[in-house]
Amino acid sequence: MAKADSTPPKATPKQMADAIRVLSMDAVQKANSGHPGMPMGMADVATVLFSKHLKFDASRPDWADRDRFILSAGHGSMLIYALLHLTGYKAATREELSNFRQWGSKTAGHPEYGHMPGVETTTGPLGQGLANAVGFAMAERHLAAHFGEDLVDHRTWVIAGDGCLMEGVSQEAITLAGRYRLNKLTVLWDDNAITIDGAVSLSDATDQKARFKAAGWAVKAIDGHDMGAIKSALKWAERQNKPTLIACKTKIGRGAATMEGSHKTHGAALGEAEIAATRLGLGWDHAPFDIPEHVEKAWRKVGRRGARAREEWEARLAEAELQDDFVRAMAGGLPDDAFEALDAAIAEAVQTKPAQATRQSSGAALSALFEAVPELMGGSADLTGSNNTLVAGTETFDAPDYAGRYINWGIREHGMAAAMNGMALHGGLIPYGGTFMVFSDYSRPSIRLAALMGIRVVHVLTHDSIGLGEDGPTHQPVEHLAALRAIPNLQVFRPADTVEAMECWRLALEKADGPSALALSRQKTPAVRTEAASENLSAKGAYELKAASAKARATLFATGTEVALALKAADMLEADGVPTRVVSVPSFELFNQQTKAYQTKVIAKGTVRVAIEAGIRQGWDRFIGEDGGFVGMSSFGASAPAEVLYEKFGITAEAVVAEVKARL
Amino acid sequence: MAKADSTPPKATPKQMADAIRVLSMDAVQKANSGHPGMPMGMADVATVLFSKHLKFDASRPDWADRDRFILSAGHGSMLIYALLHLTGYKAATREELSNFRQWGSKTAGHPEYGHMPGVETTTGPLGQGLANAVGFAMAERHLAAHFGEDLVDHRTWVIAGDGCLMEGVSQEAITLAGRYRLNKLTVLWDDNAITIDGAVSLSDATDQKARFKAAGWAVKAIDGHDMGAIKSALKWAERQNKPTLIACKTKIGRGAATMEGSHKTHGAALGEAEIAATRLGLGWDHAPFDIPEHVEKAWRKVGRRGARAREEWEARLAEAELQDDFVRAMAGGLPDDAFEALDAAIAEAVQTKPAQATRQSSGAALSALFEAVPELMGGSADLTGSNNTLVAGTETFDAPDYAGRYINWGIREHGMAAAMNGMALHGGLIPYGGTFMVFSDYSRPSIRLAALMGIRVVHVLTHDSIGLGEDGPTHQPVEHLAALRAIPNLQVFRPADTVEAMECWRLALEKADGPSALALSRQKTPAVRTEAASENLSAKGAYELKAASAKARATLFATGTEVALALKAADMLEADGVPTRVVSVPSFELFNQQTKAYQTKVIAKGTVRVAIEAGIRQGWDRFIGEDGGFVGMSSFGASAPAEVLYEKFGITAEAVVAEVKARL
Repeated sequence: MAKADSTPPKATPKQMADAIRVLSMDAVQKANSGHPGMPMGMADVATVLFSKHLKFDASRPDWADRDRFILSAGHGSMLIYALLHLTGYKAATREELSNFRQWGSKTAGHPEYGHMPGVETTTGPLGQGLANAVGFAMAERHLAAHFGEDLVDHRTWVIAGDGCLMEGVSQEAITLAGRYRLNKLTVLWDDNAITIDGAVSLSDATDQKARFKAAGWAVKAIDGHDMGAIKSALKWAERQNKPTLIACKTKIGRGAATMEGSHKTHGAALGEAEIAATRLGLGWDHAPFDIPEHVEKAWRKVGRRGARAREEWEARLAEAELQDDFVRAMAGGLPDDAFEALDAAIAEAVQTKPAQATRQSSGAALSALFEAVPELMGGSADLTGSNNTLVAGTETFDAPDYAGRYINWGIREHGMAAAMNGMALHGGLIPYGGTFMVFSDYSRPSIRLAALMGIRVVHVLTHDSIGLGEDGPTHQPVEHLAALRAIPNLQVFRPADTVEAMECWRLALEKADGPSALALSRQKTPAVRTEAASENLSAKGAYELKAASAKARATLFATGTEVALALKAADMLEADGVPTRVVSVPSFELFNQQTKAYQTKVIAKGTVRVAIEAGIRQGWDRFIGEDGGFVGMSSFGASAPAEVLYEKFGITAEAVVAEVKARL
Repeated sequence: MAKADSTPPKATPKQMADAIRVLSMDAVQKANSGHPGMPMGMADVATVLFSKHLKFDASRPDWADRDRFILSAGHGSMLIYALLHLTGYKAATREELSNFRQWGSKTAGHPEYGHMPGVETTTGPLGQGLANAVGFAMAERHLAAHFGEDLVDHRTWVIAGDGCLMEGVSQEAITLAGRYRLNKLTVLWDDNAITIDGAVSLSDATDQKARFKAAGWAVKAIDGHDMGAIKSALKWAERQNKPTLIACKTKIGRGAATMEGSHKTHGAALGEAEIAATRLGLGWDHAPFDIPEHVEKAWRKVGRRGARAREEWEARLAEAELQDDFVRAMAGGLPDDAFEALDAAIAEAVQTKPAQATRQSSGAALSALFEAVPELMGGSADLTGSNNTLVAGTETFDAPDYAGRYINWGIREHGMAAAMNGMALHGGLIPYGGTFMVFSDYSRPSIRLAALMGIRVVHVLTHDSIGLGEDGPTHQPVEHLAALRAIPNLQVFRPADTVEAMECWRLALEKADGPSALALSRQKTPAVRTEAASENLSAKGAYELKAASAKARATLFATGTEVALALKAADMLEADGVPTRVVSVPSFELFNQQTKAYQTKVIAKGTVRVAIEAGIRQGWDRFIGEDGGFVGMSSFGASAPAEVLYEKFGITAEAVVAEVKARL
């Protein structure tokens, strides 16, 4: 601690940056686990960014118009924890820092959204933060158009490493940002030329600056340890009319006594001896987690820097015409009348019994929601007509005004899913994105992160089985329902008809704390929900759609387009004297949340149980037990018309009847 | 048909290209499904490529030294079917063409490897073919170094569309190719400025030529309908010392009477009227699937063009010192002594009982295989030290000689998996690649295609559970075992110790018709296979590792690091007087291939059944039934030391004992 009886010296920017360095190496050392090299290398850049440019107020991490700071190179988590601690975020205590990476601490190994205020998104899987940032920047532009720049006018800053830039998703992200001229997005590339295995040149020779230019970015290269150069570059970035890349030439582990510049600083504690020598070299004569008063003071001042701007903004908000809408949307609440038109459409569908593909039903649901829920915003990864994601008359999101709500995502499933996460994390929007279900494999890493973070995004996955026909096995999901259901906290819906599709859309919007995926058919299917219900039956996850004519001897479980097939099989069984009930199963996850008593009743163990789904059996034993019958797929599909495929792969009412009879 | 009584005119290149156009539009029309626009647009480029540059012999599609032609824009499958038919590939009959996209035909909706000779890889999911091609080109260079250019000296040609280039995997692929200076790789970009939703500019503004240059490629732009320009460009490509991109400015649906240049030609039949008008415009007065004699003759000559080169090559092969090795490796056979060192290592491990992480055991297996199996070639996506993928002393694959067998894949999980597919498809190599198991999500689309194609690649997936500790939930697989097991024809292994890891590696190499994934621990685990066995027990998929002391009342099933835990629980139960058996389950897939009698014996329904795996329950009902006990995960993990996590998430011997006792 500095002596109290003398005026402490004013902290230099270097001392402020060294505080980050020392906290990082000490926390990693204490945990004996973590990544000191990156925080030490980027400490100078981060110091200038936070001191002079980032618009924030440490006392109000939830200020809606704050700049967003995204640490895409999430392994360098101590960088952000150190910054939050130093600038005075209440949650980022000294104790949290010294419990880095331990059970129950807010300082998780990688930054986790929802653990520590100030962490805007969960990062670690490389490239994701950068791609999230594009979504943040898109959200900012659209909300600025909707609510005005008085309320929404902030930047998105990203720190990304070589790993982020090598991942394919980064290409989808940067071309998206370039196309939409997201000029309030700046990427600070930690150009340290080091990866885990050694020099970047071992595996890559890309001219990243030329690559970003080719994607429509403005690019500048600086010495990432030159505070003056960093400052000028950040100012330059704020003046550009395109997204900006600042290549910051740095040394990994900057300041480490003997290991500076080595990949050995990347992913392990430096060790006591190196740390002692580094302290000496930096002239840092303080115990671990002790920050000298003048340095702390300087950093706390940085933390308060945005307070006045925040207060002015609050005053503007208090006066704003759209204040209530803004506050509601940012809080994630839905409009009071969100589901009025949808409920009317459900009532109508019960009457009109439309026989249509469930992707069309999904499109109808979206149409019924779009006006009442202005925060719904999305599009398709170049399959608009197939995914039924465009509500007629919707304007396209584009520069310069960004008021449109339809997004041409391009052929970028992964980038779309990651940007959707960023939009949801920004707040104020409920993003959706469409592609063929089989390509959920491309976006899977981002779907997983949405589930882990517990954020509301909606994946519209059409062409959900061999029922898509001639495009063949590369396009036919077989294992995807099981694979998606495997992700914790992801709601997977496979609606059977228009009514169920509309119910599922409602459930997707009502789940504010997690993502949803809608599996939708390419092919037409008859209406099965032809009677008015007093509640959202899909909310039960599984429910008896058709009762048996007498005490049930068989139960047929089915989802999506196979529900109609189950009904047909049930009729045949009833005609043969086998009382048969049919259970529609729009969502495994919601069924698992019902009472044990309800589950027991629906499953009806005493009956012969057979499930029908044009996917693999995995997961279905939950309903049918190990000895139940299953009519579905056990291999990849094939290229032929849909009806032929159902016949050839044996997914028929006759097969269902045979499975039941074999067990009676 | 041309008249027989007059000398037919010599076919012009345009007529040859028109033959592709007409076959494509007619086949799509007949199927009433498919994509005519791309084949029509790229017909000129393909005609020049096949006529003048591609080294092939239609009578011998299996010629090992042929050039590889990859249709990355796989939706344009009629392009390749038309080319194979016209050049005289025996399998590409008129009947096959007229059965386009029908059940049982070789002319699947997208080109399917193994259906039609001449189709080198399965394409359709965009970007995959391009990324496969990088693997083809890597394999060619390495095998040329190993066997000499007398035997291996060919090029890889790719046709890719805007969709391929927008997908993130393309960035990983082209930077890999650029880094390794794969100068025998040429991408012909169908630069038609059209995607399904309309103009490319709707969603993308990338300067692709600058982007490829930034990745280390030589780039040329031409009019893709100017035969002379195409020819010069292909010659130019053959002279470069880097990979080459030829941007071919084309019109989609070239030749279509009124729809040329429109996205409406992309994915649907043109319709009878448009087809009639197009015939008129092209001056093509022949019935569907009829090819005039002079055009057919010209194309057949193209098909025979490479016959002499092929014969000369065969003569060289017959004289080659390494002939036997070459033929064996290309046929996918293993050396006779492939497993001698491995068997010895297994015998040793039974004695020494090493307590080590299974990733280390995997490294030991690889070491024991590497000398005896020269076609094993691979590396890690920048996690070499963590994945244990480097056998000491192995040279690195790199320009200019390419003799090394260790590949620095870079931070490119998806590109790695796709390139591995290309290497396996090329023949002569067994590729492997390492990453953290959680990042199998990134490479999943390519893992799926390996399974669909039935090709031998080995995915080394370390850090397979919460047992990785402090890196936290972004890095901890929870659902990944279930999600990988869901993919048909993928062998998923989770070995319990060194002996099992070695057995599983052997099984991975022995499965010539499908990919394998090895789930391996970060943390140390004791040896459980401590007695010599007369067979590869892992080959059974599941087997009794420990018998009960008396008639078994309980069975514990476990995989990987949880097998040791099951053994501990079994001891505790036995001490409490509950005779308990333990079944190790290294592979669900192999277990499902055993006889019913064996399965029944292993599962032992009469006993209380509990499974232990640090992943989700999904899939385990197959072993434990719907009422069995499960000790594992039902949520994402957390950031903390491994032992703490096992304790906090309740994966302990005590929990297993409790699950059993609750059911006795």
